[in-house]
Amino acid sequence: MVRVEKVEFKPVGVRDLLIEMKDLSELMIDLAYSAALFDSPALAEEVMEMESHIDTLTYLLNMNLMVAARDADDAESLVGVTKVAGATNKISDAAADIAAIVLQGIGIHPIIREAFEKVEERLTRVNVRPNSILVGKQLGELELAAKMGVDIIGIRRNKRWIINPEEDEVIREGDVLIVRGAPKGIEEIEGVAKGTIRKLED
Amino acid sequence: MVRVEKVEFKPVGVRDLLIEMKDLSELMIDLAYSAALFDSPALAEEVMEMESHIDTLTYLLNMNLMVAARDADDAESLVGVTKVAGATNKISDAAADIAAIVLQGIGIHPIIREAFEKVEERLTRVNVRPNSILVGKQLGELELAAKMGVDIIGIRRNKRWIINPEEDEVIREGDVLIVRGAPKGIEEIEGVAKGTIRKLED
Repeated sequence: MVRVEKVEFKPVGVRDLLIEMKDLSELMIDLAYSAALFDSPALAEEVMEMESHIDTLTYLLNMNLMVAARDADDAESLVGVTKVAGATNKISDAAADIAAIVLQGIGIHPIIREAFEKVEERLTRVNVRPNSILVGKQLGELELAAKMGVDIIGIRRNKRWIINPEEDEVIREGDVLIVRGAPKGIEEIEGVAKGTIRKLED
Repeated sequence: MVRVEKVEFKPVGVRDLLIEMKDLSELMIDLAYSAALFDSPALAEEVMEMESHIDTLTYLLNMNLMVAARDADDAESLVGVTKVAGATNKISDAAADIAAIVLQGIGIHPIIREAFEKVEERLTRVNVRPNSILVGKQLGELELAAKMGVDIIGIRRNKRWIINPEEDEVIREGDVLIVRGAPKGIEEIEGVAKGTIRKLED
């Protein structure tokens, strides 16, 4: 079930909000295509969670813009920002529409698969279990790209998303990782996160 | 001015329509970001043209789906396709919203530029003039990526878009090229298309 987040005003940098919304909306499109291509409810649910989060960010952004605008000139210069935020929101809605097809079990028609099949690399979502060797490691030291041919392109930690995490980001128990890579590497990282694979091959 | 295309039923492959819509909608997002980043009405207009074209494709797709569905089973298996088409339409609307900010002259707030600045490569739109050395050449023989560091990612020819054209596509007088690349190469290809640069450097 997608939780609807309660929104209260807090002063947040509009720039950071807009960047987060843009990055999230782009990731959502990729996730939604993958969800449809591989008929994956797990990925589709992640898209739905993100969609709900983007709604919250949109509220926050608009509240902060209203507070920031003290006169007509401010309002005029800031109105474009609300339009861009609205556009990212619309993109995220579109991603959610595609994800909904998977969750509603309408069935993915072969035509849809063919339209999305250019997505060569696979995306997956993995939960980091307490006994995984990933826990406490920095992304950089894991060298996942070299060792498995996969990239961690997003981390969900509680209600926060970290898109394109930095090398020094430390993986924690309970993190949800969004991973992109070739099918073999994807299988491996799933085992590593689950704790069934205890060693990274060189 | 954006022309509204008259839509008449014609039997078209739904698969090809969906792929064209998906490719166009993704290109539109890139173009819209670039239009905002560089405050370019030319790119913004191209986005608007594409938006109108996607509307036409959506009608055509839905008409063809209706004709294809002869019973409830068909309808059930095809309804997902209309949802995906609707999603690509929504994405194209979002791109048009961003392009509209440029065309309405609301002004691009620095916050928007910062959000889009990760777009490292530039996109441009160039018209191929009759005296350009590009006319009659195959894309492959031009070696634009090697010689100028640019890629032709789309061609508008009359009312048709060719997205990610093949190597053997022949450039014609009057083509509108959507080009991606580093700023220096972009400047060169503009001169080549205009006919002011008559030779490709090695």
